Amino acid sequence: MSLDAVLSRIDADLDQATARLFDLLRIPSISTDPAYDADVARAAQWLADELTGLGFDASVRPTTGHPMVVAHGGEGPHVLFYGHYDVQPVDPLSLWDRDPFDPEIQDTPKGKVIRARGAVDDKGQLMTFIEACRAWKAETGTLPARVTFFFEGEEESGSPSLVPFLKANADELRADIALICDTGMFDDTTPAICTQLRGMVREEITITGPKVDLHSGMFGGIAMNPIRAMTKVLAAMHDDTGRIAIPHFYDGVPDLAPELKAQWDGLGFDEAAFLGAVGLSLPAGEQGYSGLEMVWSRPTAEINGIWGGYTGAGFKTVLPSQAHAKVSFRLVGTQDPAAISRNFRQWVQDQLPPDCTVTFAELGGDPASVMNTDHPAFAVARAALSQEWPGDAAYVGGGGSIPVAGHFQTILGMDSLLAGFGKDDDAMHSPNEKYDLSSFHHGIRAWARVLGGLA
Amino acid sequence: MSLDAVLSRIDADLDQATARLFDLLRIPSISTDPAYDADVARAAQWLADELTGLGFDASVRPTTGHPMVVAHGGEGPHVLFYGHYDVQPVDPLSLWDRDPFDPEIQDTPKGKVIRARGAVDDKGQLMTFIEACRAWKAETGTLPARVTFFFEGEEESGSPSLVPFLKANADELRADIALICDTGMFDDTTPAICTQLRGMVREEITITGPKVDLHSGMFGGIAMNPIRAMTKVLAAMHDDTGRIAIPHFYDGVPDLAPELKAQWDGLGFDEAAFLGAVGLSLPAGEQGYSGLEMVWSRPTAEINGIWGGYTGAGFKTVLPSQAHAKVSFRLVGTQDPAAISRNFRQWVQDQLPPDCTVTFAELGGDPASVMNTDHPAFAVARAALSQEWPGDAAYVGGGGSIPVAGHFQTILGMDSLLAGFGKDDDAMHSPNEKYDLSSFHHGIRAWARVLGGLA
Repeated sequence: MSLDAVLSRIDADLDQATARLFDLLRIPSISTDPAYDADVARAAQWLADELTGLGFDASVRPTTGHPMVVAHGGEGPHVLFYGHYDVQPVDPLSLWDRDPFDPEIQDTPKGKVIRARGAVDDKGQLMTFIEACRAWKAETGTLPARVTFFFEGEEESGSPSLVPFLKANADELRADIALICDTGMFDDTTPAICTQLRGMVREEITITGPKVDLHSGMFGGIAMNPIRAMTKVLAAMHDDTGRIAIPHFYDGVPDLAPELKAQWDGLGFDEAAFLGAVGLSLPAGEQGYSGLEMVWSRPTAEINGIWGGYTGAGFKTVLPSQAHAKVSFRLVGTQDPAAISRNFRQWVQDQLPPDCTVTFAELGGDPASVMNTDHPAFAVARAALSQEWPGDAAYVGGGGSIPVAGHFQTILGMDSLLAGFGKDDDAMHSPNEKYDLSSFHHGIRAWARVLGGLA
Repeated sequence: MSLDAVLSRIDADLDQATARLFDLLRIPSISTDPAYDADVARAAQWLADELTGLGFDASVRPTTGHPMVVAHGGEGPHVLFYGHYDVQPVDPLSLWDRDPFDPEIQDTPKGKVIRARGAVDDKGQLMTFIEACRAWKAETGTLPARVTFFFEGEEESGSPSLVPFLKANADELRADIALICDTGMFDDTTPAICTQLRGMVREEITITGPKVDLHSGMFGGIAMNPIRAMTKVLAAMHDDTGRIAIPHFYDGVPDLAPELKAQWDGLGFDEAAFLGAVGLSLPAGEQGYSGLEMVWSRPTAEINGIWGGYTGAGFKTVLPSQAHAKVSFRLVGTQDPAAISRNFRQWVQDQLPPDCTVTFAELGGDPASVMNTDHPAFAVARAALSQEWPGDAAYVGGGGSIPVAGHFQTILGMDSLLAGFGKDDDAMHSPNEKYDLSSFHHGIRAWARVLGGLA
């Protein structure tokens, strides 16, 4: 069977695959710092050359920012593979144990790791798919699927060119499904496929009381204090059980499917360790939900910032004219960002004491992404990943958002499958970033299985 | 009767008195700006020379900052007269209609005014007493009371030398009562004697939740947000009737004496105009109390500042480690600053949700000042002021604090009587400061009556 041969080739070729990854890791493609613009361009060209060498029709495609890399090859079911070749800055350099752009294999108590900026995010991850394709081509002379590669170089700097590029090249990029490799394992032994990502609504509130700042000696007691009004409003946003009190807020929040809940409950999520790592001990979300539900499948209302009055050293007895807060909502299911925003604003209005007015800044929002797990690629990927690690692959949620998945859906009408092999201790975005050599190795093998399974 | 002669002399001498005040107003004695140090010293010397010329034993007394002026003269009941000869800066100069240090008499729809920096605060006010003494000396050759003048030159820059100077010169400065002329009329026709000033406790609260800032995508929903905890605590500080919910907070808050309440109710305080001027319409204090009670005789709890999380432009989905607030309490009666602070801190502790800790900064406090209206000077002053203006002199409260009155009580064991002739539209601390010529004129006459009445 050709898959077995492909897998054996991957095993035999691991040192060379690692050497190729090191070539890419040596390019300091920091997208947010213009001093590295030439390096970012060099990384794009390196990828295009690599893919051309594998027989793909590859090109570096300019944008008004950093270039995209697009490549096509193979025949059969059509998948688009997405990754990003840019990396985070390395500051503070003093916290790195070695040059971030001089990768090496290191032995650790938990096994061999590839140490370098970009090892996990996302160069090591994207190379797993390239190496899987290489092995198929080398062993069989062809690919078991039609593959489009799509790499961007601005993921770590806000992806300003992504949406325009997708819109301008929709027909070229649209595939049966997108494979996005920029996520992690559930734990060391349990691979994961992310099947839902929370959406977000951002609000900035300004409550105005008196039209000028007042002296609390003259006006304290008789004048409305907008900070007090702000605390009253925000304190009422959650009831005593952690439930969000805004009317209609839970419209579109689905009950967690029993089979998914059972699977999550079976994951053995160590809530105490998760919270203990950041100095907490008790889950602070809605009563009656598990910790994983709180971060994956339940919506939230968070105050991300608050300010008003005098905030410097010492004291000033000001009774301020205004108080401000930034509030965000994480959305799930089919919660409608526009409706959440509208209902929140009306609710704030309704809570306001007399003599206070409120204004809101337009900061936008995005709905939750719920993956179409009925797409056949999910069963293929789940089986593939389960064969490479001790634990069965889990369908997990993501508390944050991965905008590219939403853009693929919105602009291309294309479902996404998110699978990646990062670990919690990979120090993503931090000094001494690493990628487990086993993640790289089994990641390549897993994608080789997926490619075979799709055929 | 000699008082009538003294008053006639004051009327006849008004132009010369105004000219003398103009000499003092021409000295730019801005205490907070070292560029004006020589001018501050010149103003002190000008006062000492003026008092020496009137037969007082006057001297300029150095401190580590700006000098004090002390002068003694006369025999009989002993009063200490306090004022300050320094002034506020004049920025922004562009908003002044003329040179702030080139005083002139201007006609306005409401009568003649003396326009200059320091006209009301406090050079015009302190000169009323000097001119009253001058008239008594000129008419009778003596003073009807023993008078000690005590002028400072640092009132507008925090009075750093005041307490040390009082402690070092307590025996010299102690009198039967202090007369403090740095306050205002109740309204255009009603003179006022301030008989109570609110105290203050300052608190700065820091609530800590997670030990580091968290990403709300990863932790939102499960992790305690300290801003949310802060809003819950502060929102509970007032109940729905505006009453402060901290245990024992009202210990030491006296009921307003019925005669004082009746007098205040009779003042015709225009609550709507007072609030309307700052864009408000409804009193926001405790239900069941009048507007004047809210600012004069009721204690308060105000949030003077709040901050935490991301407060810059745009949005950052941080779930912060800490939230901060500055809270102040205005105290009345015999409320104990130490007990208020202790009870507040315990109450905050008791409100905290699990996994939150709180720390407090030591910012200190001062009790309320309640004047001893049984001192005979009060009846004398009330009668004197009532004879100079259409309305009877009112005993009023002050919402803020005038620290020197507290220091006189604490350090010298001396009661104070606060009477001044400023108006709400005097633009104190602002461009185009003025003092009504009628305030200057009747202020001199009122103090002449007080001096006569004390004898």
